[in-house]
Amino acid sequence: MIVQKFGGTSLATVTRIREVARQVAQARAAHDAVVVVVSAMGRQTDELVALARGITTEPSRRELDMLLTAGERISMSLMSMALNAIGTPAISFTGSQSGIITDTQHTRAKIVALRPIRIDEELQRGKVVIVAGFQGVSPEKEVTTLGRGGSDTTAVALAARLGAKMCEIFTDVQGVYTADPRIVSDARLLSMISYDEMVQLAASGSRVLHPRSVDLARTYKIPLWVRSSFNWNRGTLVTDGDKMESVVVTGVTSETDIAKVAIKSVPDKPGVAAIIFQALATARVNIKFIIQSIGESGHKDITVLVPSDQLSEALDAMESIVDHVEAAGVLGESDIGRVSIVGAGMAMTPGVAATMFEALASHGINIDLINTSEIRIDCIIGRNRVADAVAVLHGAFGLNRLERKESSP
Amino acid sequence: MIVQKFGGTSLATVTRIREVARQVAQARAAHDAVVVVVSAMGRQTDELVALARGITTEPSRRELDMLLTAGERISMSLMSMALNAIGTPAISFTGSQSGIITDTQHTRAKIVALRPIRIDEELQRGKVVIVAGFQGVSPEKEVTTLGRGGSDTTAVALAARLGAKMCEIFTDVQGVYTADPRIVSDARLLSMISYDEMVQLAASGSRVLHPRSVDLARTYKIPLWVRSSFNWNRGTLVTDGDKMESVVVTGVTSETDIAKVAIKSVPDKPGVAAIIFQALATARVNIKFIIQSIGESGHKDITVLVPSDQLSEALDAMESIVDHVEAAGVLGESDIGRVSIVGAGMAMTPGVAATMFEALASHGINIDLINTSEIRIDCIIGRNRVADAVAVLHGAFGLNRLERKESSP
Repeated sequence: MIVQKFGGTSLATVTRIREVARQVAQARAAHDAVVVVVSAMGRQTDELVALARGITTEPSRRELDMLLTAGERISMSLMSMALNAIGTPAISFTGSQSGIITDTQHTRAKIVALRPIRIDEELQRGKVVIVAGFQGVSPEKEVTTLGRGGSDTTAVALAARLGAKMCEIFTDVQGVYTADPRIVSDARLLSMISYDEMVQLAASGSRVLHPRSVDLARTYKIPLWVRSSFNWNRGTLVTDGDKMESVVVTGVTSETDIAKVAIKSVPDKPGVAAIIFQALATARVNIKFIIQSIGESGHKDITVLVPSDQLSEALDAMESIVDHVEAAGVLGESDIGRVSIVGAGMAMTPGVAATMFEALASHGINIDLINTSEIRIDCIIGRNRVADAVAVLHGAFGLNRLERKESSP
Repeated sequence: MIVQKFGGTSLATVTRIREVARQVAQARAAHDAVVVVVSAMGRQTDELVALARGITTEPSRRELDMLLTAGERISMSLMSMALNAIGTPAISFTGSQSGIITDTQHTRAKIVALRPIRIDEELQRGKVVIVAGFQGVSPEKEVTTLGRGGSDTTAVALAARLGAKMCEIFTDVQGVYTADPRIVSDARLLSMISYDEMVQLAASGSRVLHPRSVDLARTYKIPLWVRSSFNWNRGTLVTDGDKMESVVVTGVTSETDIAKVAIKSVPDKPGVAAIIFQALATARVNIKFIIQSIGESGHKDITVLVPSDQLSEALDAMESIVDHVEAAGVLGESDIGRVSIVGAGMAMTPGVAATMFEALASHGINIDLINTSEIRIDCIIGRNRVADAVAVLHGAFGLNRLERKESSP
């Protein structure tokens, strides 16, 4: 059996839903069982959020979940109708009917158990089961949503629980690229990528998959196919690293909607960091990463990167505790961006960081901050040089030339 | 406690929802407990049906229910947000969460039990409970809808089960009129009307309330207030007849989207009517009423009135059995309309029918068919004379002049 997931752009219109239904019917003919996970049509989730914002700037999260789950209810019932209309028996289930049990954290719930009893029954009757992505039900029978990347998570979790041989993620791009094709004209479509690399690419700006779903797929060893629902091409297979050819750098990613907040010359005492991050947490600031540098004797600077639209909240939060922690002051900067390279071979290959820094320097791109992990290096640079930097690094690591081993679907 | 029901036009926009929420908050301040039943926003139910029709001409009724219930999910969560935003604690519940148990007839389910356990709990916590109208859940945990007039039915049923002292039906008109104000310029708003009269008015064309909900209110003796959510005026109280001043004729109603199908000269034998009506039922024709007349010896004519848009199905159904029942032939006519008078005093007052027929005749309006019940007389006439007939009868029975006893809200 297989699980197929379709995102909002794949289901944006009645015509698209009918086209997707024809593809699902073909998949059903080729496999013993097919489960289809759907997102809301087009930008409907955003439209529902806009309605809520029209009512109040701080909607109850419980009611927001109730509201947003209407979106998948519409797309799933239409998909089921479309399949039945072409002679492929189908039935749609909400998160609750699918047995997707979550914790009680509205708008960002985590799946705690899967009891797909009704899905099993209907699969055994030969039906295609359409499942509402992004939603579940808490033990208190409250409707919840899974937050960002929720529908991908639903699909991968169900694939794991139902023992699917693979999970296909259909989207509006061709698959996973070595860099954003809108920035780098010779960016290459990867035929294969490891879970580890995909997690890093996703976390560092490739929007094709959410890191949470890739992480889940890695844990349960579910092969993920990222494919286009507009031409049904092969796309990219995300699978185990040990089946992969060793490549030093797999891709380049970037981000420009970030800002920097630094608290300067904080005394190096226990508990100071806790106060700072508690203040940011209370202000609901989403921290992208943290860099701590050594300043004058017994003091340090702490820099955090935050989403651009949270800069003022972050500055306010920092200002509110600057006297309490006896720091010298707070600085904010929004004119920055990030460029990153990702690759599983990086850890075993000396000189990758040096190559990256030299390539940037030789094009006059100044590096403000550096952050590294085993398979990823991030550089914070001026926002107006981000596109240049992506192209420079894509060339410097030969990503336009590299051929990776192809695997069969 | 009270139950308030708001229809689609009352909730058509975010601004309307916020305005309605302010009124609900006032009601909450004045009463121990308030339950609010909502329809889908504006014409959303029609828009969802149009989406389904874009997928297939014959959507699965199970999936259609899944689709349509998204509408109230959106309006109820927004209403709850709006109340919470102005400091009135509220929570929204789906039909299922409200314990509205129905049979399994998708798209036209009937309520079989009410188990409002969660509603009770939240009312005791002082919250306003917002309930999705029109929807329920079957014993098999399938989502169902109640069909036409469904939200009114939800409101009245909950009012009965929760022991509400009244049920307010908020709509886009001022209340119940002696005739359609768009047809009769001096139509009067009724301050009070009996359940029996309201059932007949509703069944004969007044679209303010569905007869099903009035019937339920009558059974459980729930006073219904029909009021406008655009100016919050007093509106019309629908209550027990015995509290009413006796008035001969309460209102005039009409209908123009009907057609007539007659099967001529049917042998007067047992079982013939059953064959005819079975054929119509199989073709899913909705029969508005039946008139059987005596024809030549041992034969009769059977005439049925059907919705205009079902005329061709009704004719086909009749043609299919015309030989089998040895009838002379089938006739269809779509150029007709109906005008009716309704009034609880009619049965005890001689000459009402005569007054009606004379008034029509004196204006040259020819009567094709007549149908009567204790508190209602229907005349089938030419479609182009229906508006005239309503005005003529409204005047003939002095409905523009009559004053009825007012009751306090």
